[in-house]
This record gives sequence, structure tokens and C-alpha cells, in this order.
Amino acid sequence: MSEYSVSPDGIKYKIPTREELKAELASISRIVEDQRARGREIVTVMGLGFVGAVMAAVVADAKDSPYFVLGYQRPSKRSYWKIPYINSGKPPVSAEDPEIPEIFRRTVLEKKTLLATGCEESLGLADIIVVDIQLDAAKPVFGKAETGYVELDAFKAGCRTIGKYMREDALVLVETTVPPGTCERIVLPILKEEREKRGITKQPHLAHSYERVMPGRKYVSSIRDFWRTWAGIDRESAELARRFLSRVITYPLYEAENTTASEVAKVLENSYRAVNIAFIYDWTLRAEEIGIDLWKVLPGIRVRPTHCNIMNPGLGVGGYCLTKDSVLANWAFKEIFGCSDGVPYTIEAININDKMPLHTADLVADALKECGRDINGSTIAVLGASYLADIGDTRHSPSEILIRRLREMGAEIRVHDPYVKVWPEFAQQDEDEFSLAKQFRNQEDLKNLRVEQDLDKVVKGVDAIVFAVRHSVYLQLEPKDVLRMNGGTPAVVDAFNIVDDNKIMEYLKSGCAVRGVGKGHIKRLKQLI
Amino acid sequence: MSEYSVSPDGIKYKIPTREELKAELASISRIVEDQRARGREIVTVMGLGFVGAVMAAVVADAKDSPYFVLGYQRPSKRSYWKIPYINSGKPPVSAEDPEIPEIFRRTVLEKKTLLATGCEESLGLADIIVVDIQLDAAKPVFGKAETGYVELDAFKAGCRTIGKYMREDALVLVETTVPPGTCERIVLPILKEEREKRGITKQPHLAHSYERVMPGRKYVSSIRDFWRTWAGIDRESAELARRFLSRVITYPLYEAENTTASEVAKVLENSYRAVNIAFIYDWTLRAEEIGIDLWKVLPGIRVRPTHCNIMNPGLGVGGYCLTKDSVLANWAFKEIFGCSDGVPYTIEAININDKMPLHTADLVADALKECGRDINGSTIAVLGASYLADIGDTRHSPSEILIRRLREMGAEIRVHDPYVKVWPEFAQQDEDEFSLAKQFRNQEDLKNLRVEQDLDKVVKGVDAIVFAVRHSVYLQLEPKDVLRMNGGTPAVVDAFNIVDDNKIMEYLKSGCAVRGVGKGHIKRLKQLI
Repeated sequence: MSEYSVSPDGIKYKIPTREELKAELASISRIVEDQRARGREIVTVMGLGFVGAVMAAVVADAKDSPYFVLGYQRPSKRSYWKIPYINSGKPPVSAEDPEIPEIFRRTVLEKKTLLATGCEESLGLADIIVVDIQLDAAKPVFGKAETGYVELDAFKAGCRTIGKYMREDALVLVETTVPPGTCERIVLPILKEEREKRGITKQPHLAHSYERVMPGRKYVSSIRDFWRTWAGIDRESAELARRFLSRVITYPLYEAENTTASEVAKVLENSYRAVNIAFIYDWTLRAEEIGIDLWKVLPGIRVRPTHCNIMNPGLGVGGYCLTKDSVLANWAFKEIFGCSDGVPYTIEAININDKMPLHTADLVADALKECGRDINGSTIAVLGASYLADIGDTRHSPSEILIRRLREMGAEIRVHDPYVKVWPEFAQQDEDEFSLAKQFRNQEDLKNLRVEQDLDKVVKGVDAIVFAVRHSVYLQLEPKDVLRMNGGTPAVVDAFNIVDDNKIMEYLKSGCAVRGVGKGHIKRLKQLI
Repeated sequence: MSEYSVSPDGIKYKIPTREELKAELASISRIVEDQRARGREIVTVMGLGFVGAVMAAVVADAKDSPYFVLGYQRPSKRSYWKIPYINSGKPPVSAEDPEIPEIFRRTVLEKKTLLATGCEESLGLADIIVVDIQLDAAKPVFGKAETGYVELDAFKAGCRTIGKYMREDALVLVETTVPPGTCERIVLPILKEEREKRGITKQPHLAHSYERVMPGRKYVSSIRDFWRTWAGIDRESAELARRFLSRVITYPLYEAENTTASEVAKVLENSYRAVNIAFIYDWTLRAEEIGIDLWKVLPGIRVRPTHCNIMNPGLGVGGYCLTKDSVLANWAFKEIFGCSDGVPYTIEAININDKMPLHTADLVADALKECGRDINGSTIAVLGASYLADIGDTRHSPSEILIRRLREMGAEIRVHDPYVKVWPEFAQQDEDEFSLAKQFRNQEDLKNLRVEQDLDKVVKGVDAIVFAVRHSVYLQLEPKDVLRMNGGTPAVVDAFNIVDDNKIMEYLKSGCAVRGVGKGHIKRLKQLI
């Protein structure tokens, strides 16, 4: 019986058998020979996820087209669809960046420098193999990131496949964010072992370079037009990587001492942001208690060049990097290097950030109480599901934790987000062993949570409205329109400075209870009515 | 019997009696009348310490000379000497900034817009009273900043003196870094009370604006030519403060919501730096264990505009602000506002930073061990006593903690610093109730610790050399010269990236054991010999 892989827009693709895939090798080889004859080197990008798919297109789009790119993806039920998708010129990622559809169309259909395949034997055709295999950190206990660990099996299996097929002189460039030490202590031994089985005793060329991708309107540019740190396991590998990166990346390159230093740099820089957010949380709670608006304090500090990066308060921290990279490091230091400790001050920041949305849930309960209502049995509209303003990315979104907590407190939930159609973290909650659902008392009922695009419908009749994400559309909302949609005087909670003081006054004058993260001054505004 | 106040250069000044001081009022009043006739307003700066003395000169030096400045200082044994000192045109602060002697000479002797006095009645002559009274946070237990508190008695007494004499319409501008809430909840009630005793029922004009002074070669400029946040307790006070500051400060002003917000801003911005240093410490220890050089990782991260302020590793954190401001906040939130908590994540950073020098002491012991020596009984040269590179300021210098720890471990200590002649924290250790001396087993013998200017003498024959401060002179030291001065193969410990890799190699080749904060790569360098 055939297996199928279904694309997000519902197209079913039959997954080819191992034999069918193997048979592709002959035709791919012919294409590759032709490309080599045109003077191009062959780059295989392994793993067509959030980074890999776009990296493949960026390499295929490089100035003067020095590379022909094979995008390799394991033909799994979950991901096989990406291969026929890309080969028809369509991006396998959705994004707010207009360059995304453009670059796939251009490289696949016009330049014909990008071809996707599920044939693992094709790895043997590459001069350069860029590793973009997904690698996750597991956080088995909510709010205890110190228990987090890394599951390396799939990543190791990918490396083994590379070792099995790679050309003797090919460069393996790891771009995945990995636990420090991975290249030297995990990738290198696997490659060596597999190559030795094939009689190759020469040390493989291996390097590490990490991307700094940002979802949103500059998605492609954030991979291509930004600084890069890189390192090789030896001088030759470093030079090969430098040569490749300097042809693809338009920004200056910075050479790290070795691959471990490059791996540390990535997780350290994301940890820096996480710590700075946790730091502001300390002051957010106090600002609320002592009656000042922290959002107005910070601009006066940010003028100092030494303080320009001070962070804002908010609902919490989401996304793929800031929530997990410190865990990769903490785990690696202890488990890969046998260090006496991990990075405890950094891990405490992750815990603070992970639990931060619980505070907004408390503000909702508090505001409802002021209205004489109990959160248990109230209906709450959460405006915003994604983890960043004006993008549709829900990975580790703090809105998920907010919603689970509100549900746990007995509230009925409605969600609105103009950028989000499905919310996989809820829909697929059974598949994840450490799903937050399980940690929040098995929230089976949230599995069918729908993200609505119709704001009127979501806001109508609810007891409380939470502004959870700084989407432009929410910044533009006028209180009179919100109140008209609602039809009553709901509690209003602002998690991200979305409702300015004039609007807060309007809500207060209309009799709404209002709360805001970091906004202790609302008490004073209320006295002015 | 007369009391005397002795200046740092040893001149004895007889402290005038209360009656003698009071008698000064008549002559000061005549000068003030004359100054008013020239169209000048009268500004009294109260407290001629590190900030106040220079602020007085900056105000007196303002463009178009709109102000005549009275520098008021309580005529204590410790500080009275500053008054005759200033009045002779000499600065009462030592500094590396060439503008310091210049601005005192100019304002006192040329422009004649600055006069110092110990006559408290003269406060009644001022249109504007700038409060620069010193205010300390006590940290009674080393490494437990959560037990820290604020002793407000002297500050309150100063406010009471102001209330007793101030003109009805004078503006009181608090510039001292104070616990949040101080202006509204401490200064205002005291001023009101004292004014009511005098029959004045009108609310006093009161404002807060904090400086961002940096010791070093731009000391004066850091007060005058830098952004300012300010706020008043009412609109009129805010306007008076804005008018004054805009005449004296050359940079843009930022108005905070109220004085509490302005007070929070100051301690928050210093806490930001403290937290970022503590964060790097996590990674410093791991870099040493896993064998990479953290100092080489950071420049590749700092290229990102969002990460340009990431901090460096080092010996620890010193100075007056970063070591205490978080304590002011933590204490104020709990004790002034009755908050449910302080700022625990921030306070943990203070603890990490306070204890950080203990790590360098461990590196010294470890390096000595490699040489087959025990730290107990070894002689150690600490190069650098101040808390910042190329300045002579020893306030809360991490070198003090390093030295106390090394002494506790049984080492004999020698200290060198080209900028420091006396080290009050050691000399006056008896006077401070919470002196680190007491917490490090009553280090009576360190009371006579001398800071030497002769490097040869300090380094000669010692078992270990610690590069503790990034003074230029240490950056320029060649290993061959250091080894010649020493006459043997001392252990070398670099706490601040003062010894580059080429020099490390030279020390290693000469047989020295070498360690460095954040420098795990030294192990690898050793294998290259």
C-alpha cells in the first residue's frame, strides 16, 4: 500500500519507494554532469526546513551562479511533499517575505540551479554538503529548563548517511544550531567511521557556520545579507568553507578559533537575548506594583549607545531559538564535555521566560475580578497566536502557554490571528511526548482550537480581551470599535504595549477594567476619570 | 580644642566653629546680591563628592554664565578641606581628565561663578538646590546582596537642612542615585514638614534627574555632555528642572512620567550592565573547561547591532554604581513600596559579580599547583588596584576581593598600580561596619597594604603574577621583561585579556604556568610547545 505526504494546502503526494528514489540517481547524475560542464560546483543542502529550504534557494541564486544545488530531504510522510513542491517552483515555507516565492521561482524554473530530491545516493554527487537537519532540545518539565536535553538520533542518522555517500574531498558544512562540541565529537567520528568502512582513511573536510535567520518580511535577506561566524576542523576545511560562504553570503565573515567556538557563539548570542528579556521581567512586575509605566522608562535609557539593546516587557518569549539554544548549551557542557556545571544563570532566564505568560493570565483574572466576574467560566478572546509581530509563525509562541493557563483556570478561549490559519502546537499536541498539553492537565479540548480571521466574531460577547501580539492591525484598533464588536464592557489586558494611554482612558471611561504588562500607571489613569 | 580636616596632599585645615560659619552668611549674601544684580540665578550644589563637586563646576561654567554656584559641604573632619581647596581654585577630586583642574581654575578664579562654603544658612540664598549627598547601600553579607539595605539617615538629615532654609519658591533637584520612591515618599514629606514649621504651606518644587558620570579622561564631559532623564513632582517643578538642565546639559533631555520613574530608570540601567556581566560569567567558566577562548568568540557576536553591547569576561565588577544600584532598587521595592518581592534575578547577578574575583584566586592556586607550589606561603604580585583601566579609582574594586581571598588562602601580597597611591578600602577598613576585611576573617595585616609604583620591585621574586586591571602599561609589558624583573618562572594569571596569545606562548615556552579568565585555549597552546 502506498504512503502519502500531504502539503499544507492539501495536495496529496505519493511517497516513492526506496527503489524508485534510487532510480532517480541516474537522471540526477546526468544533470549534475551537465552542470559541472558549465563550470558549476555541486552543493547539496540536507534538510529542507525553515532554514535549509531557503538556504538552498540562496545558494542556487548566488551571484554569477557558481553552484548547482540539490535540495535533499528525507522522504518522510511529514516532509516528502516539499520535494515535488519545490520542483514545481513553489516555496515549501510560507512567509511574509515577497522574496520567498520569487527566489524559488527564479532558481527552480528560470536559472534551473535548484533541484529537490529524496534520493540519498545523490549526496555522493556533492562538492559541498550543507547540513540543515532539524535538531530539537526537549524540555520535559515546564519551567524547569535544567531538565532539558538533546535528542541527537535523527541528526546522527543524517550524518551517517552523509558519511556513507560523500565524496572523499567534499566539504561538510554544518549549519544546524547544535550543542557545542557536536562537530568535533559527534559529526567527525561518525563521518570517519562511515568513510573507513568505504576504505577512505583521509580526514573529512568539516566546518561549522551558523545562520541568523529572522522570520518576517526579510526572511531571505536575513540568511544571505548578514554577518557570519565560521570555523573548520582544520585549515583546509576552514578555507573551503570561507570560499563557499564568501560566494553566497554578502556580509563579512568572522572566523572562530574552532568549530566548538563557532557552535558556542550561536547559542551564546541567543542566550544573551533570553537573559535580557528575563532581566526586564524582574522590573516589569515591580513597575506594575509601584504604579509606573515601564514602557515609558526604557526609551530614556535606550538613548545610551551602551544600553541601546535593552529589551521590552511583554507576554513572553517564543520562536525556535531563544527558547531552546541555552538548553543545547547547558546540556552539552555537562553531557558532551563533562563540565562541573552548565550555564545556571542563563537557564534561570529560560525558566523565567517560559513561565512569563502565566503573569498575563493572572492579569486577566485580576481584571475580571474587578468586573465582578470569575475567570472560571468566563470567555476570553486572545488576539494574536504567533510569536512575533506581523508574522504567522507559532513555534513556541507564548500565546500557547497563555491559552493553556487560561483554560486551566476554567476559561473558554477564542483566538484571532490574521497571519495564522492552523496552529500545529494544538492540533498535533498528541504527537509530542512533552507537549505542553500534557503538562497542563491533558487539554484534549484545546486540540480543536481554531484560529479565527474574523475579529468581530472572536470579540463578540467575550468577558475579556487579551492583546497578546503586536500585530499592526491591533495597534490600529480603536476602543469604540472594539467595544462595538464586543457589545459590552469587557476586561482589557494589554501584554505588549498595544493600547496607548489615550485608548486606555477610553476603555476606562467606558467602564472596562484594564491591565497591562509593565503598566502600573493604569491605576493612576483610573483615578483621573 | 580645634578640629582639623586634612586634604589628600596632607594640608591641615582648621574646621571653623558653627558661629564662624554662620558669620560667613553676611559676606556670602553680599556676593549673591551682586551676582543677582548681574542677572544670575543662584544654584547651591549640596554635597561636594565625586559628582557634586564637578556638577558645581559644570553649572558655574555653563554657557553665558546664567548661574552663580555655591558649593555647600557639611564641614566634617573628612570633607571640610574641600571648601578652602575649591576656593583656592583647586579641584577636590583627582582625575585623569585634564578638564578637571581647568574647570575649577576657570570658574573659581576667572569667572568667579563658584564659591564653596560650609555655612548651611546659605542654602536660603539659592533659587535651585541640587542635591548630591552621598547615599550608600550596605551589603552586610558578602555574596548575599539580598540582605542589602539602605541607610537613609544622613540623606534625610540633608533634606531636613534644606527644608529648614530653602526659599519658598526654590527648586530642589535631587541628583543623588536614590532608592526608587525617595523623592515622593521621603524628600517631599521632610521638606513639607520643615517648611510648615516655618509657616510655608505651599508644596515645594521638587524634581529628580540623574547623572551618568564616568571616571576617567572624560569625567567632566560625562556629566555635562550626555543624555539626561528627569521628572518633577508636578508640572511646575518639571518645567523649572527642564529650564535649569537645558542651560547646563548639552545633550537632549528625556522627561520621565514622574520622579519614581526617573529614579527607577537610573538603577535599572546600571542593573542592566550588572546582569550582562553576570551572564557572561556563566560562559566564562565553561569556556575555560571546554578549552576555547571566550574573548575571541565575542567579537563575532558583537557585530550584530542587536548584540553590540555584549560584555566581556574579567576579574569582576567594581565602582560605585554597578555594585550597589540593584540593591537600592531591591530594598526600595520591598521596604518603601511593600512589594511582594524585589528584583531577584537582578540581585542574583550582583551576587555572581561580587563573588567573581574568587574564581581568579582559584586560577592562581591552580597555576601555582602546576608549578609544584602551594598558594599557602607563596608571594603574589597583583598588577592593578583600581576598578577600571587607566583610572585610579579603587571604589569597590574587584582587586580588593581578589587580594583578600588570596590572603585568606595564605598568600603574601604585593600590589602595583600606576594610578593609585592610597587604597582607602584597606587603610580605613576598621571604619566600615561591613568591611570586607571582617568578612574575610579580620585581615588586620592587610591594613598596611601599600600600593607600589615600582613594577620591578613588586614583580621581583614573586611566585605568581596576576594581571588584574587592563591598564595600558600592562598591555605593553613584554614577557621577557616581566621574566627578567621576576628572575624566575612565575605563574602568570590574566584576568582581563591583557596577555595576548603570542605572549602566552612566550611565557609557556619559558616554563611558566599560565591561566586566563575565559581562556580555555591555553591548554591547547601548551600542547603546541
